[in-house]
Amino acid sequence: MNSPLLPAGFTTSGTTCGIKDSGKPDLALFVSESAAAVAGVFATNRILGAPVIVSRERVPSETARAVIINSGNANACTGEQGLNDARQMTADVATGLDCDAADVLVCSTGIIGVTLPMDVITAGIPTAVDALETSTDAYKSAAAAMMTTDTFAKQISIDVQLSTGTIRIAGAAKGAAMIAPNMATMLAVVMTDATLSSAQCDEMLRYGVDRTFNCISVDGHMSTSDTVLLLANGASDTAPATDDDERKLRSAVQQVCEKLATDIIRDAEGAEHFVIVDVAGFDTCEAAFRIAKEISESALVKTAITGNDPNWGRITSAAGYAGIDFDTSFLSLKINDTEVFQAGTPVEYDESALSQQMSENREVRLLLELSGGPASGSESVRFWTSDLTQEYVRLNSEYTT
Amino acid sequence: MNSPLLPAGFTTSGTTCGIKDSGKPDLALFVSESAAAVAGVFATNRILGAPVIVSRERVPSETARAVIINSGNANACTGEQGLNDARQMTADVATGLDCDAADVLVCSTGIIGVTLPMDVITAGIPTAVDALETSTDAYKSAAAAMMTTDTFAKQISIDVQLSTGTIRIAGAAKGAAMIAPNMATMLAVVMTDATLSSAQCDEMLRYGVDRTFNCISVDGHMSTSDTVLLLANGASDTAPATDDDERKLRSAVQQVCEKLATDIIRDAEGAEHFVIVDVAGFDTCEAAFRIAKEISESALVKTAITGNDPNWGRITSAAGYAGIDFDTSFLSLKINDTEVFQAGTPVEYDESALSQQMSENREVRLLLELSGGPASGSESVRFWTSDLTQEYVRLNSEYTT
Repeated sequence: MNSPLLPAGFTTSGTTCGIKDSGKPDLALFVSESAAAVAGVFATNRILGAPVIVSRERVPSETARAVIINSGNANACTGEQGLNDARQMTADVATGLDCDAADVLVCSTGIIGVTLPMDVITAGIPTAVDALETSTDAYKSAAAAMMTTDTFAKQISIDVQLSTGTIRIAGAAKGAAMIAPNMATMLAVVMTDATLSSAQCDEMLRYGVDRTFNCISVDGHMSTSDTVLLLANGASDTAPATDDDERKLRSAVQQVCEKLATDIIRDAEGAEHFVIVDVAGFDTCEAAFRIAKEISESALVKTAITGNDPNWGRITSAAGYAGIDFDTSFLSLKINDTEVFQAGTPVEYDESALSQQMSENREVRLLLELSGGPASGSESVRFWTSDLTQEYVRLNSEYTT
Repeated sequence: MNSPLLPAGFTTSGTTCGIKDSGKPDLALFVSESAAAVAGVFATNRILGAPVIVSRERVPSETARAVIINSGNANACTGEQGLNDARQMTADVATGLDCDAADVLVCSTGIIGVTLPMDVITAGIPTAVDALETSTDAYKSAAAAMMTTDTFAKQISIDVQLSTGTIRIAGAAKGAAMIAPNMATMLAVVMTDATLSSAQCDEMLRYGVDRTFNCISVDGHMSTSDTVLLLANGASDTAPATDDDERKLRSAVQQVCEKLATDIIRDAEGAEHFVIVDVAGFDTCEAAFRIAKEISESALVKTAITGNDPNWGRITSAAGYAGIDFDTSFLSLKINDTEVFQAGTPVEYDESALSQQMSENREVRLLLELSGGPASGSESVRFWTSDLTQEYVRLNSEYTT
């Protein structure tokens, strides 16, 4: 996606107000020129960042105008002051846009337990408003200003042909560490110029997030501040008219979420492998999900992949402790396209060739399949994870979140 | 525990039959001279090693005579052949002891997916039987022969004064290697010369294991072969006669289990810190346990401790995603004896002094306390874990099967 494009009626900016010692961009602003329907999905942690508490109260809504995001400070565990600061950020944006503060959403990411430097933020917001543009450059700047330890900006835009016309969906996200299902320290803003109600936004966003952001894991640590927002401003004057249109839109939202979520995994701290975990043949999605999650979060599976070791024992044993009552004798596993475990029994295969293949490719695919017995069925789940490297440990033992 | 002593009526041996390429001891035998009551606790993984399947069928019992353990090969994922081999090991021991094979229990730890070299094992078992002794040296040899990647043998014995006389409880374990390069396993054998029924053994063992072995985590990966056994042969001719005797015995079993379990954490691969996680003030043990477990298994908490970083945000946020509905404003956290978070708010403290203290001591203590609101109460749980180091990743990724 070399030239991500904003949907009609959206402007963005990425500027530097001075939160980060590094002097890198730290303020991202996403604005709809007219009232937009909005839905949000948030961290379920009992310890929530102040911006999550404030934004959660403001969705769903039919009148959203903007999302202000700062990086470098998560405004979490900051008590009453933190809530006041989060609300102040939305008020500052509302002043600049001449709208109601309640129509501005706010996200923060970075260090926990330190109050925001509100002087530089309040001073910086008018600059962020002045910098708003519809250009690809402005969109790229906004995505870059969300970054913390990310090494590249994550964004995408796609056009969707509905029976009533063409609409665009675009999204930007940040990720890196503290990534686990049910939202982690990841933020994403998805925008569309389609005409949708907030209820439609909510349904499509949850459908997409369940299959993408909730199926990624770097380290199983759920953050305090995860937020995914979907804004629909209707600037294309195109609403879905048929069931097929709805399906196409839902699928496009999922596609945008999947691109952003997998980019987060591609950019996982210290990762050397991008791992696709498919779990198939279970009677419920929940069962497949729990197994995929255990495999994806096992330090032993992840370190084996780091070492290009097709260590199927670590993978099947992680499946075994997911709490699903299956019969091992119906279980099979492929690593990439090589069958290593079939019907509960190890398979003879060329281990050094498979290891070589793993060392030469960043992507590794695991396919665990159940073919009969208790808990078997036709449901499958795809999960994405990264390997666990010495560099991950170095980064997270030398850096204060 | 420089001179661990066997309880009366028990003999042990540790010998080398030739399973390990290294030539190190690989066969441990624990024998009761008379029929012993026995109880066992086993891995709950859906994928179980053959010895677990065989031994699980043989407990509880009032007539156990021996436990044969081999290291170097876990006999897991080895199908019908594996079950036959596990049974054959018990038959070989039964021949040597002139007892029933059903009264012999078996454990294996080491590589998975490879069938046992039964020729050397069958040839080695008579040697193991011949080497049986009551001496401390024989007991040390048995503990050493259980080891895989353990760097030291884990054993203990304690004497307990009951109203009816003195009994001894002794235990040996191997571990570390929850996280060992090849799916090793935690095994422990606890022996007492007290007179107990298998039902009493079962109750005391579960009480102890729940508070010790089930409260340790190196990397959260449950193996296929974990086994803890308690044998009571009555050779002291001393049975608990009062409630107080029962309490003392239960407490002594717990003490033996705690020593073995914490030694496993002390010997965790690559670990630089030994971490005690106390969670207090919850309405149920289950709630406190879930929070302690999430904290103990968080890669971000563990890497922070590696970096001597008193990063309370990672600790409180891990507590927050344990699925317990508490109110943050009643939550407090101490790291060692320093209060860093009080009633939901960060506390001013000398961060560099605390970091310095963490760097100078192997042991780190976390105390998370809830003082009111939903889910608060008087239950507490202690968990033990290790930090996550680059060395852990190196050990577990550089190993190639």
